[in-house]
Amino acid sequence: MVLVKLKAKIIDVEAGLNVALLNEKYGGQLDFDVSDRVRLTVGRKTVVAMVDYSKKLVAPGEIGLFAEVSRALGARDGQNVETDLARRPASLDFIHKKLDGGTLAEAEIKAIIGDLMEEHLSTAESAAFIAGVYTKGLNTEETVFLTKAILASGGVLKCKRKPVVSEHSIGGVAGDRSSMLVVPIIASLGLTIPKTATRAISSACGSADAMEIFAPVNLSVREAERVINKTGGCLIWGGAVNIAAADDKLIKIRNPLRLDPQSLLLASILAKKKAEGAKFVVLDIPVGRGAKIASVDEARDLAKAFEALGKYLDMEVSCVITDGSGPAMNCVGPALEARRVLELLEGKEEPPLIEKACTLSGVLLAAVKGITRQEGYRVARQQLASGKALEKFREIIEAQGGDSRVRPSDVRLAQHSQKVFAAESGVVAHVDNKTLSRVARVLGAPSDKEAGIVLEVAKGARVKAKQHVATFYSDSAEKIRDAFEQIRKMPLIEIDKLVFDVV
Amino acid sequence: MVLVKLKAKIIDVEAGLNVALLNEKYGGQLDFDVSDRVRLTVGRKTVVAMVDYSKKLVAPGEIGLFAEVSRALGARDGQNVETDLARRPASLDFIHKKLDGGTLAEAEIKAIIGDLMEEHLSTAESAAFIAGVYTKGLNTEETVFLTKAILASGGVLKCKRKPVVSEHSIGGVAGDRSSMLVVPIIASLGLTIPKTATRAISSACGSADAMEIFAPVNLSVREAERVINKTGGCLIWGGAVNIAAADDKLIKIRNPLRLDPQSLLLASILAKKKAEGAKFVVLDIPVGRGAKIASVDEARDLAKAFEALGKYLDMEVSCVITDGSGPAMNCVGPALEARRVLELLEGKEEPPLIEKACTLSGVLLAAVKGITRQEGYRVARQQLASGKALEKFREIIEAQGGDSRVRPSDVRLAQHSQKVFAAESGVVAHVDNKTLSRVARVLGAPSDKEAGIVLEVAKGARVKAKQHVATFYSDSAEKIRDAFEQIRKMPLIEIDKLVFDVV
Repeated sequence: MVLVKLKAKIIDVEAGLNVALLNEKYGGQLDFDVSDRVRLTVGRKTVVAMVDYSKKLVAPGEIGLFAEVSRALGARDGQNVETDLARRPASLDFIHKKLDGGTLAEAEIKAIIGDLMEEHLSTAESAAFIAGVYTKGLNTEETVFLTKAILASGGVLKCKRKPVVSEHSIGGVAGDRSSMLVVPIIASLGLTIPKTATRAISSACGSADAMEIFAPVNLSVREAERVINKTGGCLIWGGAVNIAAADDKLIKIRNPLRLDPQSLLLASILAKKKAEGAKFVVLDIPVGRGAKIASVDEARDLAKAFEALGKYLDMEVSCVITDGSGPAMNCVGPALEARRVLELLEGKEEPPLIEKACTLSGVLLAAVKGITRQEGYRVARQQLASGKALEKFREIIEAQGGDSRVRPSDVRLAQHSQKVFAAESGVVAHVDNKTLSRVARVLGAPSDKEAGIVLEVAKGARVKAKQHVATFYSDSAEKIRDAFEQIRKMPLIEIDKLVFDVV
Repeated sequence: MVLVKLKAKIIDVEAGLNVALLNEKYGGQLDFDVSDRVRLTVGRKTVVAMVDYSKKLVAPGEIGLFAEVSRALGARDGQNVETDLARRPASLDFIHKKLDGGTLAEAEIKAIIGDLMEEHLSTAESAAFIAGVYTKGLNTEETVFLTKAILASGGVLKCKRKPVVSEHSIGGVAGDRSSMLVVPIIASLGLTIPKTATRAISSACGSADAMEIFAPVNLSVREAERVINKTGGCLIWGGAVNIAAADDKLIKIRNPLRLDPQSLLLASILAKKKAEGAKFVVLDIPVGRGAKIASVDEARDLAKAFEALGKYLDMEVSCVITDGSGPAMNCVGPALEARRVLELLEGKEEPPLIEKACTLSGVLLAAVKGITRQEGYRVARQQLASGKALEKFREIIEAQGGDSRVRPSDVRLAQHSQKVFAAESGVVAHVDNKTLSRVARVLGAPSDKEAGIVLEVAKGARVKAKQHVATFYSDSAEKIRDAFEQIRKMPLIEIDKLVFDVV
């Protein structure tokens, strides 16, 4: 096939990968097949895309460019697009090699991640890579190569003050805002802790969503470094600084497939920590019903793998295994969680989240300062009790561009709220993370930041029928009705009856 | 999430799977995520589709329906589409089970094939299934279940006269029109041989494309049965009778991935043979450079697997291992190949294809009639020599609706042709199947039925520089130029020099 010139037709569809659309008959004549790769050039910009056919949307002589492609080419409707068959990417051979049980060399893993970043792999090919890693595994060396390739795919933060430390949870627990406590505790002790947090993917709130209630989180690398160098900490959205960019692409393939090979989890998390420049890392591994990891044994194995991989990457990794079978706080949703964190920093109450955050902080302090973990824990508690953590939190808010004088009562909540009552009497047996997230999303979280749920009871509490057990918040009365609809199918709180029957 | 009504916006894109497009902001508010499955209902028709987002193409309150979805729903622009979250298909758990190395039960394999047919699986999920089968394999029982599930996904032919026999090649050889000889030979001996052939997928011509030069091949099941019951044979396009429909879907995933798990190959071919109602089957396994199978040992293993699986399916399968390292005839392209087959049936020449077709026929005759394969071969040759095979071929052409009096000289060839000359002297070392297909496609085959290549020399021939070695045919002078461009990058004929250098 020789090069042809086709007229661009912009198609406003986020295809999720680079797709170019040809008229079905015309594409056949040009010998471009569905799933062929074509190299498209407009001016000096070149992109590789997959061919798809359309009967009517594009005419012969036209090429339909989906959103990703037209953006990358900077193409406008009617512009000439030089179109040529592209070479089959070499990384496909390496994906095959993994499916065949082979061990991948550093250059081969680099090539796969490179082609993933350049959108040279189709969804099916990327899925085959994930399936290959899932079925055949990666050995430690391959995992190190993968971590480095993911690290190289995105930006890095350069912090002046050493040592740099970091905290991270493998996730899955509703209302787990540990980072919003650990960062000010640790930074208030003079250590550097740059936290690149995620936004909610399938949950109702990520740490970045909650922090955004107090301050901007979409900071550039330069802005983030300024905040860190000034305050010793930050709580920003990792997406904006483009940390470990390949990881986002891998997650988009892994999540719908629900394939979570351990080596990808390891590489994903440690690449982010490495990109933050961390030397000491503490990882939270929540365990239990509704959490990502089911058993403590499984968590111990994962912890060992994290610690081992950390050594190869010149990081000292410690892991804390925690109870992840229910929410970490009594509320879900960005504004509700943010308000609650501020109350905790003000010393209002002592829920399990304080225990968890101080344990994580203590483990970091032990690693850095050579003290015991118990001593580290006590130091962390002291920073909270003395108000120094709160003071540091306000400094960070200010440095990120927020209002450092913010009070819990300043946090705006949704205009509509409605109480939820227990359907029956008994003991609260389980409050499921996934159910909480699902219902909070129906209420509008995370895009409606003020939407969410406040729980009035915790696991183990005795409740009576018609007792007030939770409150729904939303900017829409209709969404509150939808949420009540939802909890008819999926109980918000599981209650064990005390008396099963009277016979 | 509760059910919402959205306005249909028809989008003329063959997405290759069921996709429904939501306005990005609005979709988030509805809590429909990218890759979520939604159940769409218009009137009495219901379809499950995957959600994708668009910023501008669809407005809030609209749902964009790609070609497959709007067809299946019979939806028109502006119609109300009831939209609800669909359950995650159970087959995803079975795909996981296979990736985890488990053995699938019959109901589980049925569920996967069922969801594949109903478009309930995303491309990535289907790819994960193929990768699971590739890495973990299917045992004989699972392969039997898969064959039955593929068989059940499409139509079957019911032939009155027994026994029904069938011939099939695993493919990859250019110009291999054995079936066009085997069918008339076998049918002329009173046996029933219904051939459901393929059209070219990546090659320049399938048997269905070549037969179409003489007669219609898009017959319905009823029409095909009438032809078979009348003549004892047919040469029709399997796609039109919808034989083993799931196989087409599996091929569309396997081909771009280049993942060909043996169990899928076995199931694919034997499901088709079973759908033809065959009791005796002969399979051609071409071996060598440029063929699908590299070594005779590998071919023997495959043959054993075919024979074993055949027993479970109540079919007697015999395999013939043939030289597949080059084209089976001296021409490529529908019209050229069809004309050549007619010449062979008229007894004009004795190329290797005659040898191959009579061997395949002989093996079938031996299996059915209890004679030796040598006797079978001689009987087949006799049918050719006596003109009885030609007579039967003309009967089949007539029954399928073609002109039974057609002569080779009636076959129209392309208006443009140009000779190809050898670049250097030497011995023809290799004529590559894939190169021939690629170049013939550049010339316009298979959609331009008259386009193709005639070779003037075969492997082993001595050629001189500037000797006429081939002729290109095309309906477009430009495509002939493109083909010459192509063979500068990829030599049409590989020539070994006799003298490497004079020093």
